[in-house]
Amino acid sequence: MVNYPLLLKEIEKEIQPLFSKGKVANYIPALSKVDPKQFSMTIQLFDGTSYGVGNQNKAFSIQSISKVFTFTLALKHYGKELYQRVNHEPSGNPFNSLVQLEYENGIPRNPFINAGAIVTTDSLTSIHKDSTFEHILNFIKKTSNDESIVYDNEIFHSEMANGYRNMALINMIKSFNNIHNPIDDVIKTYFKQCSIMMNTQQLAQSMLFLANHGINPLTNEVIITESQAKRINSLMLTCGHYDASGDFAYKVGLPGKSGVGGGIVAVVPQKMAICVYSPQLNSQGNSLIGTKALELFTTKTGLSIF
Amino acid sequence: MVNYPLLLKEIEKEIQPLFSKGKVANYIPALSKVDPKQFSMTIQLFDGTSYGVGNQNKAFSIQSISKVFTFTLALKHYGKELYQRVNHEPSGNPFNSLVQLEYENGIPRNPFINAGAIVTTDSLTSIHKDSTFEHILNFIKKTSNDESIVYDNEIFHSEMANGYRNMALINMIKSFNNIHNPIDDVIKTYFKQCSIMMNTQQLAQSMLFLANHGINPLTNEVIITESQAKRINSLMLTCGHYDASGDFAYKVGLPGKSGVGGGIVAVVPQKMAICVYSPQLNSQGNSLIGTKALELFTTKTGLSIF
Amino acid sequence: MVNYPLLLKEIEKEIQPLFSKGKVANYIPALSKVDPKQFSMTIQLFDGTSYGVGNQNKAFSIQSISKVFTFTLALKHYGKELYQRVNHEPSGNPFNSLVQLEYENGIPRNPFINAGAIVTTDSLTSIHKDSTFEHILNFIKKTSNDESIVYDNEIFHSEMANGYRNMALINMIKSFNNIHNPIDDVIKTYFKQCSIMMNTQQLAQSMLFLANHGINPLTNEVIITESQAKRINSLMLTCGHYDASGDFAYKVGLPGKSGVGGGIVAVVPQKMAICVYSPQLNSQGNSLIGTKALELFTTKTGLSIF
Amino acid sequence: MVNYPLLLKEIEKEIQPLFSKGKVANYIPALSKVDPKQFSMTIQLFDGTSYGVGNQNKAFSIQSISKVFTFTLALKHYGKELYQRVNHEPSGNPFNSLVQLEYENGIPRNPFINAGAIVTTDSLTSIHKDSTFEHILNFIKKTSNDESIVYDNEIFHSEMANGYRNMALINMIKSFNNIHNPIDDVIKTYFKQCSIMMNTQQLAQSMLFLANHGINPLTNEVIITESQAKRINSLMLTCGHYDASGDFAYKVGLPGKSGVGGGIVAVVPQKMAICVYSPQLNSQGNSLIGTKALELFTTKTGLSIF
Repeated sequence: MVNYPLLLKEIEKEIQPLFSKGKVANYIPALSKVDPKQFSMTIQLFDGTSYGVGNQNKAFSIQSISKVFTFTLALKHYGKELYQRVNHEPSGNPFNSLVQLEYENGIPRNPFINAGAIVTTDSLTSIHKDSTFEHILNFIKKTSNDESIVYDNEIFHSEMANGYRNMALINMIKSFNNIHNPIDDVIKTYFKQCSIMMNTQQLAQSMLFLANHGINPLTNEVIITESQAKRINSLMLTCGHYDASGDFAYKVGLPGKSGVGGGIVAVVPQKMAICVYSPQLNSQGNSLIGTKALELFTTKTGLSIF
Repeated sequence: MVNYPLLLKEIEKEIQPLFSKGKVANYIPALSKVDPKQFSMTIQLFDGTSYGVGNQNKAFSIQSISKVFTFTLALKHYGKELYQRVNHEPSGNPFNSLVQLEYENGIPRNPFINAGAIVTTDSLTSIHKDSTFEHILNFIKKTSNDESIVYDNEIFHSEMANGYRNMALINMIKSFNNIHNPIDDVIKTYFKQCSIMMNTQQLAQSMLFLANHGINPLTNEVIITESQAKRINSLMLTCGHYDASGDFAYKVGLPGKSGVGGGIVAVVPQKMAICVYSPQLNSQGNSLIGTKALELFTTKTGLSIF
Repeated sequence: MVNYPLLLKEIEKEIQPLFSKGKVANYIPALSKVDPKQFSMTIQLFDGTSYGVGNQNKAFSIQSISKVFTFTLALKHYGKELYQRVNHEPSGNPFNSLVQLEYENGIPRNPFINAGAIVTTDSLTSIHKDSTFEHILNFIKKTSNDESIVYDNEIFHSEMANGYRNMALINMIKSFNNIHNPIDDVIKTYFKQCSIMMNTQQLAQSMLFLANHGINPLTNEVIITESQAKRINSLMLTCGHYDASGDFAYKVGLPGKSGVGGGIVAVVPQKMAICVYSPQLNSQGNSLIGTKALELFTTKTGLSIF
Repeated sequence: MVNYPLLLKEIEKEIQPLFSKGKVANYIPALSKVDPKQFSMTIQLFDGTSYGVGNQNKAFSIQSISKVFTFTLALKHYGKELYQRVNHEPSGNPFNSLVQLEYENGIPRNPFINAGAIVTTDSLTSIHKDSTFEHILNFIKKTSNDESIVYDNEIFHSEMANGYRNMALINMIKSFNNIHNPIDDVIKTYFKQCSIMMNTQQLAQSMLFLANHGINPLTNEVIITESQAKRINSLMLTCGHYDASGDFAYKVGLPGKSGVGGGIVAVVPQKMAICVYSPQLNSQGNSLIGTKALELFTTKTGLSIF
């Protein structure tokens, strides 16, 4: 059996030389201010046991990891009907590219690129109207088994003030009639969900249902169907890391989702969920040390799905 | 335990209504002539047991499935050095698009699109020169445990006479200095490897090493390292089905590779290899019934990797 | 010497069979309501003489023809410095494409595509602030020698309510730091300038300075330098008709600018200015009958610049 | 009246400081060997008078200027029917881009990009078969009034040995069925026409018919119709200089065509033809000093068509 505490110590040691290699996200001031030298990691098992290293209580902006939660909610509500508005193919282009959107008539390639996540949030807005963000946050609290989770107002306003590319995206999609609610409402909810603050413990717990056929193993609550859980995992594997999704699948071999805040979540089907945090990013916008830590994890444990 | 003969009967029955939905590849006469109503499927276990349905002895043109063999050979020889010439990201574009190649300076996005497979074959040509095709064919014979495998000369000549897009690709790549051998030599080998004829039994056997950490379980021969086997599997998952790779991962949830001849191979890590054949293609160029049969297989057995 | 009244009669007769061939712009309700069967044309000479056919007093929405006025103002103020923010190459893509903008870092290819016109209007906003639109309108009144010109408030609001693509464009350009003023201010001025209503007489007069080395021949006022006038003409020739600019140059052989309202202005250097109006558009968004009328004009008079 | 000898002296003096700014074409050895410091220019009038500066007898590789001759021949033979195979819109992309070709189904945007010129040569091959190059060369001899013109065999073979991008283009177009003759035949003729050697005197004479309504003023021979001559001129203006066509129209204001050998021809309708030679190219692949010399010419003479 794996000695997780020892494993995590090894990983922590081996990633040290990489602390000077990446760059903290700097497109908004609120994100650029974080201490670049942070590293924390949590392994969460089905029986409630967890193992960690670094400051696992340090909350960070979850950013694009929020897309997993909103896609889960939308898939739960709409089922296959959702695919008419968001496809599930890798995009093969940097994460905020408008090119593909234009050639494909406003249908984003998948829900994990910004365009697709915005359409997903719009689909939730059609259901929950003014309380859409509240529903998203409540869902995250429930899957994390933690009522204390909040969003960061400064980051939210910073995103709003600098979100020209996302505003371009949502207007573009609207021009193809694939946004059904007022642009301002949808984009606010989208930026708020990106500004939610969580730590590695909370995020690792929140992903357990994806590792466990759609059921939260700590509460036995059915979140989604087994088939839907598998499909979300496959989507994280093929599309979870922008234009480095292939590389992540290749090196780590686990379904995962990264955010420019520096977090990455990963799922070991039928076994556990993992979250790693380190804010320095590689050139594709994913946590450089987080990616390496997960690569070391699967190499040392043989837990790649392949 | 799964009752495979019963399972295969069920699948065979359930795919019947789809026999009028697809279209046999018609870009070369030699391929368009096959009987469109064929269906065969083989499940190959590590202990040598196999289960099948349909005419498992019917050989068909393996086409792009050959890319798995050449990539395996090139990865075995060059290791990570190979990535300087071929990337491992999904392409997000139809399989023979020149656009991405031009924007990315002649480095194909992965070895399973035509451009990447041509570079892979070129890399083997640098080693084996005039006997490159012979080496590829011998490797296939070895992994299939079958010395009788040949290529179809009519299909080969038909490909040569109609391969303008592939000729465009190889010239384009050459203009970026990413083809090192004479164009005519490389393209001939490439078209020959696509013209190799195999049946579902041979192909299922030939993929066992990828399911078994790089070792052929029937002969215990080490084909490649465990790590390389996992990486090839991850590449099949993210890039194995052209612009429907996400959809295949989403619905089937297994590493796989399709060819326009109508074959699809799939790998269940640590358990088995599967091959299905049915020549009618869907709009993305993959076997329509083959894809459905594999989707039914993982749904019924729960053997998706997710 | 040309008998202009007879010439215009001939043209009017020859374009009759085309009245069922085009389609009135329908992306906003306010534009789609116009009578599709209109045709008017004015030839304006330097000595004040003008010749016309059809209802030359019928005002229509000038739409993209306004781009000639704003570019003239911006070139007059910034000179060559302006080229750092807007290029002067044909775009080779439909008029509202975001693709090229993304590949060229937010620098629009020319001031006559929407993206370039928006940057032009932004550059004027940096000078005139809140009174930018007033300045534009005053300039148009002056070059038209007509103080009565106004914009249509219904069309303006209709544009604002449906302008998602232009909102996408301006946000995209802003993300590259090539918009210097608040998005809402710039886009409002832009939509107002598109909503200006003019008739063929006013528009023909307003273009005389471009035919006459930058000087309004009716008032002898110097509007811009001779060199700048020639450059605006060359830009109208290479970029004045979206993705049909080559075709217009080929068939008509005069510098010109069209608008989706159905107007086209054209310049015969050193001789005259012409305006034609007919609201049915061809597939590239230019007045179908207007283009034909101008082709007939140059064929019959030999006044092509080539 | 203009004092041409003086004018040419002035231009020669003013371009001197630019001799260190450009770069001789180096994609083939045969072109890269020329002396970079050359400059010659010829002005050819309808009455046979010509004025020149520099070594007007120095022959150079005409390269893409040959596209004007082949397009003239094809337009003469096929008329408007030719437009079904080659469009006449600016391309808005570097000269050998495959992207646009793929999106537009193998129909090149105009006959002055490589793809379009190859289709043009193919259309001539359908008429003249094996003697196509001979016909092209004879036509050039006739319009130049000079029987001594030949092609350079070393340049031809050098082009053949390095023409991977053009081989990619022709294969791509063939895959869309827009090449009707064997690829090898067409590409050989194409490379031969590019390798034709001419000096500025010969080229200036050869363009006179385009300035004179389709008639060679020195022999009174009708080469093409007036309408066709104007259309070729308009095409040179909108598409004659790759991705700097707009800039050339903007600064020079004359129909013209450049070649990477360092030559540029320009037409002053109803007045004269000009040829300038200087082998250093700007970043868009046009003669840097040649472009400047022509800009000085129109600025000093006011002979821009605008």
